[in-house]
Amino acid sequence: MNKNELPLSGETAFIEALAREFGTPPPDVILGIGDDCAALAVDGDRYLLWTVDTMAEGVHFDLSYMSLAQLGWKALAVNVSDIGAMGGEPRYALLSLGWPRNRDRAGALEFAQGLQQAAREFGVAVIGGDTVASPQGVVITLTVTGWVPGSEMVRRSGAQAGDLIYVTGVLGDSAAGLEILKNRVELDSVVKKPLIQAHLTPRPQVPAGRLLARLGLATAMIDLSDGVATDLFHICRASRVGARVKAASVPVSPLVKTAASLLNRDPLDLALKGGEDYQLLFTSPSRKGEALRQAFTQAGLPPPLALGEVTPGDRVLLVTEMGEEDISGAGFDHFRGVSGER
Amino acid sequence: MNKNELPLSGETAFIEALAREFGTPPPDVILGIGDDCAALAVDGDRYLLWTVDTMAEGVHFDLSYMSLAQLGWKALAVNVSDIGAMGGEPRYALLSLGWPRNRDRAGALEFAQGLQQAAREFGVAVIGGDTVASPQGVVITLTVTGWVPGSEMVRRSGAQAGDLIYVTGVLGDSAAGLEILKNRVELDSVVKKPLIQAHLTPRPQVPAGRLLARLGLATAMIDLSDGVATDLFHICRASRVGARVKAASVPVSPLVKTAASLLNRDPLDLALKGGEDYQLLFTSPSRKGEALRQAFTQAGLPPPLALGEVTPGDRVLLVTEMGEEDISGAGFDHFRGVSGER
Repeated sequence: MNKNELPLSGETAFIEALAREFGTPPPDVILGIGDDCAALAVDGDRYLLWTVDTMAEGVHFDLSYMSLAQLGWKALAVNVSDIGAMGGEPRYALLSLGWPRNRDRAGALEFAQGLQQAAREFGVAVIGGDTVASPQGVVITLTVTGWVPGSEMVRRSGAQAGDLIYVTGVLGDSAAGLEILKNRVELDSVVKKPLIQAHLTPRPQVPAGRLLARLGLATAMIDLSDGVATDLFHICRASRVGARVKAASVPVSPLVKTAASLLNRDPLDLALKGGEDYQLLFTSPSRKGEALRQAFTQAGLPPPLALGEVTPGDRVLLVTEMGEEDISGAGFDHFRGVSGER
Repeated sequence: MNKNELPLSGETAFIEALAREFGTPPPDVILGIGDDCAALAVDGDRYLLWTVDTMAEGVHFDLSYMSLAQLGWKALAVNVSDIGAMGGEPRYALLSLGWPRNRDRAGALEFAQGLQQAAREFGVAVIGGDTVASPQGVVITLTVTGWVPGSEMVRRSGAQAGDLIYVTGVLGDSAAGLEILKNRVELDSVVKKPLIQAHLTPRPQVPAGRLLARLGLATAMIDLSDGVATDLFHICRASRVGARVKAASVPVSPLVKTAASLLNRDPLDLALKGGEDYQLLFTSPSRKGEALRQAFTQAGLPPPLALGEVTPGDRVLLVTEMGEEDISGAGFDHFRGVSGER
């Protein structure tokens, strides 16, 4: 294909076009572009996992309904989640902080305190970085490294037709929380608070990711940053398979259902396309369902919830009472803003 | 000191205030905040070096006089320079690319091509990253890792009173190039071209850094991103020493002198405070001058140039015919814009 004709409209196509420029990585690069983290064979049996994520004010967050401490927590959490999605353990972080010239710099300390609170919680040491003036708004880049035993690392690419598709927890809380914040909806705080908290201070599922990796129970895994529709599509594309998600099996909490009805939103839409749940989405052979349930229960973790199965082909289908609908890539695209919400 | 009273006006004070929030790193962190890179003991005798740098349109670069390919080159080069300043060898990079929603995304491919050109030149593999929408202008974050044998790593903190202070090349070319670009000065291209090139496509001095590290000839080292005044201050602060720079010994090329007179600027000012030369500034015992010269000549590198000496105390002094002037921290501060030029 002629480079000038590249379909650059979607984020996946954009990243793939960029990846082509960078060519084939050297052999000590176990995983390059196209997974949650890069992985390097630097130290015998374990791989160094490495990820980077940028969050920009006005695009990824709004300080009118989020404190700087919450932003600090979230900036670390989303990177930690990428390490967890490979079955790894996060260890170190560097911060690149873009701060507007005219903004009170005491706020940067509040941000750092929230970041450090998450770092302590998830066993990460913030060991360096860079501060620069930002032309508009706060721009945060975190880069995090961690470790995974080489034999345990879980990629996006191992899903097989017949595997079941699981998530580590309920979906849509974060999206419902965001809607409540944006629309400043008056809701009982019993409903509102946990949803808002899910959006502002997400908890990456590192223990679940480690457990799945250690026991070899996941064939493919990704963290839910963009929503099931998009993230399952990433697994399917990397694994060269399709998927069928049963609408009736998508785990949505009663809180999301309550909030959705008040917001006049479809709860299933929030759960599948809202994104930012930072639960893990993984595939596992159907015969291992009981082993999965037992392992999670023994580890004191809530058992994973099955919401569909891996199929041959390349389509991601949602099965409802009305039939089948293709939801491939229908989640949040940072550039196209398919979900139209951020 | 009460946290709310922290003097947050300077970049050094700002970074130190942030560093306090992050506390003491674990023992496998050989170097944390306060050097060109963080260093991790992850693999026997060698340390993993790790750095991150953000460049924002309108703050660090202007696309009206710089191509996207040149930006790609420079974004990698400034990170590679940080690895070189520890005596290390750069190996891998992740890119976080913030691209405005309304900007033609074909430009991102041009950027990636320039980045990849530098990556090939400096032996770096770009192995992953992240793309996000930027609220204003292009924002580039690169994070680069590399290796240095643990016994060879050169920090900022080893300078001793009596050491001589060297640079690996002439100074001020980049600052003169920037002034020419900004003021759209008409100059003979024989003068103009190399200065502009020094600004747009700097060459990090990795071979010189490796040589100094391998032979143990540098007691402290930093790369010249902010200018001698600021960067020497960083070495002095980390080493708890002072310095005397002889104005007459500061290496300024005839091209810079020519350009400075046409620009009505002081060439010494461009050389000491302009920044972005990406030469290495290092200290070395005075008795090793001959060994230095020989090693560089044998390696086919231009011999380092001495411009002053390390002293007791904590002041960075410039010695001119008129006497002594304290130039501590008089270089470019990203927030205060002390040099007033960017």
